[in-house]
Amino acid sequence: MRIDIVAAVPSLLDSFLGHSIIQRARDKGLLTINITDLRSYGLGKNRQIDDYQFGGGAGMVLMIEPLVNCIEDLKAANQYDQIIYVTPDGKKFDQSMANSMSLLNNILIICGHYKGIDQRIREHYITHEISIGDYVISGGELAAAIIADAVGRLVPGVLNDETSALSDSFQDKLLAPPVYTRPATFNGWDVPNILLSGHEKKIDEWRFEESLRRTQMLRPDLLEE
Amino acid sequence: MRIDIVAAVPSLLDSFLGHSIIQRARDKGLLTINITDLRSYGLGKNRQIDDYQFGGGAGMVLMIEPLVNCIEDLKAANQYDQIIYVTPDGKKFDQSMANSMSLLNNILIICGHYKGIDQRIREHYITHEISIGDYVISGGELAAAIIADAVGRLVPGVLNDETSALSDSFQDKLLAPPVYTRPATFNGWDVPNILLSGHEKKIDEWRFEESLRRTQMLRPDLLEE
Repeated sequence: MRIDIVAAVPSLLDSFLGHSIIQRARDKGLLTINITDLRSYGLGKNRQIDDYQFGGGAGMVLMIEPLVNCIEDLKAANQYDQIIYVTPDGKKFDQSMANSMSLLNNILIICGHYKGIDQRIREHYITHEISIGDYVISGGELAAAIIADAVGRLVPGVLNDETSALSDSFQDKLLAPPVYTRPATFNGWDVPNILLSGHEKKIDEWRFEESLRRTQMLRPDLLEE
Repeated sequence: MRIDIVAAVPSLLDSFLGHSIIQRARDKGLLTINITDLRSYGLGKNRQIDDYQFGGGAGMVLMIEPLVNCIEDLKAANQYDQIIYVTPDGKKFDQSMANSMSLLNNILIICGHYKGIDQRIREHYITHEISIGDYVISGGELAAAIIADAVGRLVPGVLNDETSALSDSFQDKLLAPPVYTRPATFNGWDVPNILLSGHEKKIDEWRFEESLRRTQMLRPDLLEE
């Protein structure tokens, strides 16, 4: 899978790209993540990429021309399944969307910054608008990292043990059960006996019951879908 | 405001901390973000911080002892309003939560990694469990960065122009209106005339109507709350 990301502040993505799981996926050739610095398409000697918004008001807007030139170049080199804009008013990103996206070949993620991108880009180039949650952050870069991580780790072979992702929260519409590790007692706080019993079937039952109980308590909406 | 973050992979936060808005807030003394490497509390000569989970199954769990020692040290030095664990089964983070949190003095965010942290930490130390969305990512570090960014930018004085955050999506339960910048025509695509009119009152009305229309179309749930 190939993920292209266009960013006004690409340095925000540096440490994410060097992160163990993503780095390993890239080393194995399972995942290509390519960052394009929007500034390299900036206009004039100052390589301008943003300007004041029409109609007045606080905050800068990413200009249409550098983005069009950048997207056209990328489209000439790659055939994208989706051209995504990350924005708080997009469709809510969730694990089921991450699962579907992990089956795609090429996606292009456009990161907004400041007040966002010129609306005409959204109307003429973007095929999918995605939100990672109902909150506002300084730019789309962290949101793109979240999406690339959530999707990238689901690409077959990226995680060492594929059951590791299958037992995560949401994969079966249930929250994950609680987890414990050594020591079995600390500060007088004990691990549930069942987990030390060695009875694999009973442990599976306990985990399922705990998942169900936690989901009913914390996220009953997941069970209603 | 002071935000402490405890991370198993602190390098994931490097580029976020050097990011313009957060860096400026730190330079101005408005925001302190302090990262603690959980590994420095690791056990033995290998500084072990994770172990296999009791009961078997894929994925490692962050051990209780290094986390307890780390949290106790931090609590001895700072009085925290909240000790937060970022986890997909936590309470959904949103802009209203970000607003409230921006009024706090000290928060401590614990990042899970791999399968998560030993449940006993959640029961005995964590005061708030927060989820940035219904998806699973490789670790809590990116989630902590999202929260620190969303909250940090709301601390008064962090953004240059405070109205910039007030006109963001969700601040008035409405999605933001579309934004445009120069040139007024590109590829035959025009900016709405009203934005070029100079009539400040009419522009405000148009923006409000666009916000309302987009919210009704894309997120009617926001208007029902």
